[in-house]
Amino acid sequence: MRILVAGGAGFIGSHLLDRLVARSDVDQIVIVDNLWTGLGKNFAHLLRLNKVEFLNEDVESIGNIGPFDEIYHLASPATPLHYMQHPTRTISANVAGAFRLLEQLKTGGLFCYTSTSEVYGDTTVSPQPESYRGAVDCTGPRAAYDESKRCVEALLFGEHRVSGTRVKVARVFNVYGPRTRADDGRAVSNFVSQALRGQPITVFGDGNQQRCWGFVDDIVAGLARFFWEDGADFPGPLNIGNDQEISVRDIAEFVRSRFPGSKIKFLPPIPQDPVNRRPDLTLARQILPGWECAVQYEEGIDRTISWFRREMNT
Amino acid sequence: MRILVAGGAGFIGSHLLDRLVARSDVDQIVIVDNLWTGLGKNFAHLLRLNKVEFLNEDVESIGNIGPFDEIYHLASPATPLHYMQHPTRTISANVAGAFRLLEQLKTGGLFCYTSTSEVYGDTTVSPQPESYRGAVDCTGPRAAYDESKRCVEALLFGEHRVSGTRVKVARVFNVYGPRTRADDGRAVSNFVSQALRGQPITVFGDGNQQRCWGFVDDIVAGLARFFWEDGADFPGPLNIGNDQEISVRDIAEFVRSRFPGSKIKFLPPIPQDPVNRRPDLTLARQILPGWECAVQYEEGIDRTISWFRREMNT
Repeated sequence: MRILVAGGAGFIGSHLLDRLVARSDVDQIVIVDNLWTGLGKNFAHLLRLNKVEFLNEDVESIGNIGPFDEIYHLASPATPLHYMQHPTRTISANVAGAFRLLEQLKTGGLFCYTSTSEVYGDTTVSPQPESYRGAVDCTGPRAAYDESKRCVEALLFGEHRVSGTRVKVARVFNVYGPRTRADDGRAVSNFVSQALRGQPITVFGDGNQQRCWGFVDDIVAGLARFFWEDGADFPGPLNIGNDQEISVRDIAEFVRSRFPGSKIKFLPPIPQDPVNRRPDLTLARQILPGWECAVQYEEGIDRTISWFRREMNT
Repeated sequence: MRILVAGGAGFIGSHLLDRLVARSDVDQIVIVDNLWTGLGKNFAHLLRLNKVEFLNEDVESIGNIGPFDEIYHLASPATPLHYMQHPTRTISANVAGAFRLLEQLKTGGLFCYTSTSEVYGDTTVSPQPESYRGAVDCTGPRAAYDESKRCVEALLFGEHRVSGTRVKVARVFNVYGPRTRADDGRAVSNFVSQALRGQPITVFGDGNQQRCWGFVDDIVAGLARFFWEDGADFPGPLNIGNDQEISVRDIAEFVRSRFPGSKIKFLPPIPQDPVNRRPDLTLARQILPGWECAVQYEEGIDRTISWFRREMNT
């Protein structure tokens, strides 16, 4: 049983790897990552295992190293900071990456893809069920990311329909936790790294915007169940996220409470920042009975703070 | 001045070529086409010109033959018959094709792309302005086409924004006329080729669905004005189509009237066939003052019949 994980150095990819290496049925895991937005240290602890191999390459340019029984495609920048500045590279990693990876899949093998809640764009319904077609401005500044994810979904469901390729597509909502980059622009990592540096915690707008915050352990547990633990051959798309809404302000206040003397600074709101993103988990609860986001934000943030504290050596 | 036309053997591509070769400022035109859905005879009359060269290749695999001053990317299957059966190839022609072509563009060169009204999906507003975000099911049977077009738009507007690449994106609505394939599944070419063969003219549903029918000369005149004739550097997206609605039944009846003894046969409606696709031309009338679809359907169909009659040798 050979597995390929593209984007294994990334935030979610590296957590998924931790669960994949624990599988007794897996003989070899090949990690492909160009370390553009991912971090080598996220999976360095796995390289001592004989079955794990790392290729420092662009996923769309890998050689013929297949066939693989299972392929996990998580290779993509995932924060606006990166993908807004690099449209070609973002689309290439996702779409050309998917082409190249599909060529490495064994006949009858399984192709798993982490899509995103961004396929829903500036939502007009809440919560969003998988059947919601979205409201993405395909010419807008975030479009390279949103549309490349939509395009890979189209590719995978197309090949599923036409060629019978086994696919599983998860639409991952907002995630936070250890192994994010301090500079990735996500709210929790921003707040924590700012507080650790003794800088003001910056909140855009009044902070009353509600967001769903999925702790990475919960999210990756859901992905593992969907992708390989539960036997069902349901191709998706399947929403994976936390449907409990907490305001940005509450998160910021909590981080502040952990750093005596720290302050919150309110900045002007970000234009086109989507404010309404919440998963409809009806389908997830059918496909993955019993799964839910169990970690409350206080615990999740405390665990994130501990990790950042070690990483930033303070 | 060197120009590349990808998809020049296609229906719209070959008509655009006829106008491009007439430009006195152009020294060389390289046509790239793999003749998958296009027809070599559509541009064979141009090959005697010294300035025209043809490469029978997949657009995504062309060598380094640039730089080009202008690139026209029309390489894509355009009817459900083809793109529903070939999701990978459809997405590759559009998206990987765009990557490869962008690499062949001279710095400061112009990249023109024929997108489609299909980016609007199963529309919930009519007519559709360019600002309408669409309602495409990115997992559906038509998604490979719709989403690859959306993804290339995202790529081009992203590079326009980030790198200053000069782009022009037209969203082309329903087109008919000479040089379509008899077997391409489009309504007019279907009706005409059926009548010419003495077969019944097949209408799906009751035929009362309204459609906008753009005669190819009008549509390509609009593209030529937008892409190179008018000087404006407006990147688009720009709707190009006919906003006058005529029912499928009226078209079928008119074709029947031209073939004494021919009959219309009504078949069950096609599932997920979009019924509401009509361009809002407000922007087109601002950008291209005076341009409009002038050919009435009776004349356009008569010209299409004449062409098919010659082609089918009857």
